[in-house]
Amino acid sequence: MSALPGLADVRAAAARLRGVAVRTPLLEFPVLNARMGGRVFVKPEIFQRTGSFKFRGAYNRIAQLSPEERRGGVVAWSSGNHAQGVAAAAAMLGLKAWIVMPADAPRIKTERTRALGAEVVAYDRQRDAREEIGRRIAAEHGAIIVPPFDDPHVIAGQGTVGLEIAEDAAALGVALDAVLVPAGGGGLVAGTGLAFPDAKATAIYCVEPQDFDDHRRSLAAGERVGSPESAQSFCDALMAPLPGEMTFAINKRRLAGGFGVSDAEVASAMRFAFEELKFVVEPGGAATLAALLSGKFEARDKSTAIVLSGGNVDPQLFAEVISV
Amino acid sequence: MSALPGLADVRAAAARLRGVAVRTPLLEFPVLNARMGGRVFVKPEIFQRTGSFKFRGAYNRIAQLSPEERRGGVVAWSSGNHAQGVAAAAAMLGLKAWIVMPADAPRIKTERTRALGAEVVAYDRQRDAREEIGRRIAAEHGAIIVPPFDDPHVIAGQGTVGLEIAEDAAALGVALDAVLVPAGGGGLVAGTGLAFPDAKATAIYCVEPQDFDDHRRSLAAGERVGSPESAQSFCDALMAPLPGEMTFAINKRRLAGGFGVSDAEVASAMRFAFEELKFVVEPGGAATLAALLSGKFEARDKSTAIVLSGGNVDPQLFAEVISV
Repeated sequence: MSALPGLADVRAAAARLRGVAVRTPLLEFPVLNARMGGRVFVKPEIFQRTGSFKFRGAYNRIAQLSPEERRGGVVAWSSGNHAQGVAAAAAMLGLKAWIVMPADAPRIKTERTRALGAEVVAYDRQRDAREEIGRRIAAEHGAIIVPPFDDPHVIAGQGTVGLEIAEDAAALGVALDAVLVPAGGGGLVAGTGLAFPDAKATAIYCVEPQDFDDHRRSLAAGERVGSPESAQSFCDALMAPLPGEMTFAINKRRLAGGFGVSDAEVASAMRFAFEELKFVVEPGGAATLAALLSGKFEARDKSTAIVLSGGNVDPQLFAEVISV
Repeated sequence: MSALPGLADVRAAAARLRGVAVRTPLLEFPVLNARMGGRVFVKPEIFQRTGSFKFRGAYNRIAQLSPEERRGGVVAWSSGNHAQGVAAAAAMLGLKAWIVMPADAPRIKTERTRALGAEVVAYDRQRDAREEIGRRIAAEHGAIIVPPFDDPHVIAGQGTVGLEIAEDAAALGVALDAVLVPAGGGGLVAGTGLAFPDAKATAIYCVEPQDFDDHRRSLAAGERVGSPESAQSFCDALMAPLPGEMTFAINKRRLAGGFGVSDAEVASAMRFAFEELKFVVEPGGAATLAALLSGKFEARDKSTAIVLSGGNVDPQLFAEVISV
């Protein structure tokens, strides 16, 4: 395992991303504050390039490749948002990108990845091992693998989300009691933890689908524990079955705990975001809001920030969710 | 006609609304800039209290009532956003509010208006004249009428949208070439015009449904010209058949012109907002984006701000629009 990244790496990533990534705002909604009985600050990474925070980590990784490394391009495997983040970052930096995606990934995600200039390589979730396909492409073309979370530069890049929350909250004169961050492989929440070095001041929590609560259980156990193979969720962005090695090494030191949310709670949060916040949020992106609205996290009399991590949802699914 | 409001009134309204209205951000999207070949700044009033800019004008009007005037409460007639804006402002200021709404108004709108504490008075669109009902309530209870647009305080309140755009653009070091604002009765665009006093620096345009382009035609004619009775549009917020007397007195001096957009262009803009900007925008709220995307307004090599005025759209309609 490479050395773990720290706050300095997050700051360096922020400098690298300045004028490149969208500096998303930190928004407050009277209707959400009234509902929760506290102050809630929303970080809408749905407005980020490619519709999710993933661009940050991908760009921060690819921008640090040497001229020799850049020559062979990059390769990544992802069901969606990481794919688009890598594709967009590679295109901006002039690199060829291969993206290994499941054949049944949300159509909007594969189409967009292609539109960003990447070559999409489809695989069968049941039959193929996507890592194998990715590694073969890397070997054949000399392409550099951009991991979705277990990489110090990727974690540092995602951490800029947390850094911006910290800066904007400070500018508002607000001391945040807690920050809620969704976790798939745990890169975003690990980076956010690095950006908030004072654990006594600000508690960081991860939020996961209730059947994919491997972070929550791993934190409780003190070691990495996987989700059962039978686990199901419609949060396609949060279905990593096991915390990353590097991300968990950070998260076990920094996180205050985790929450699991049901599909019904997530769908209800997506509807709330549609009706009251006027946001388009994908299932995984709405997990933190679900933790609030369901009362699993008690926000009363606190100042809490939540990250809405992505907004890439197929219109059919979105239509279904809001029409209930 | 009362005296017309000016920039000083907009500034006074901004002071009154500070900490009360949401200060919505000014957002830039790489994907929209790339599409238009210029810089586009989006003012999402969808994030305002009650989901549209209407709260600003209503609050600015009601906050200036004398203690005697407040005693009798307020009354307004509206099938949509103005209703909720008045209800919310009255509730915050501790006034009773009657809102005259059509009996067949979408249940969600009457429910929300009621949830804000207002008494909803239903009328029959075919049989009753809503102004008469409103004026009778005003006479019986001593309630003050809050007009939807033709009122100096309402116009000044809506103008704070423009003032915030001007401030945020200046903070970014951006000289705006143009600001596009939707027009129903013309209060928002009139207020925005007041907030941008230098017509040579920044052109202000109104955008309307193409069959309700009474502002565009009135500007061309130099006098108020109504829309035909046969006019149809799914932009329910922009169906005022005639510019206001006061709003037009301001707009004829200040606006550079107007654009009409079709329902298809608006629906396409709503889809773009869903897919690329992750915004929930109602039809009338998407009119300015439609003027851009359709090429009716040429944004190439310019810095343009557009106001997305509201996001209150029924889930069924939204689902239909995005599923095409």
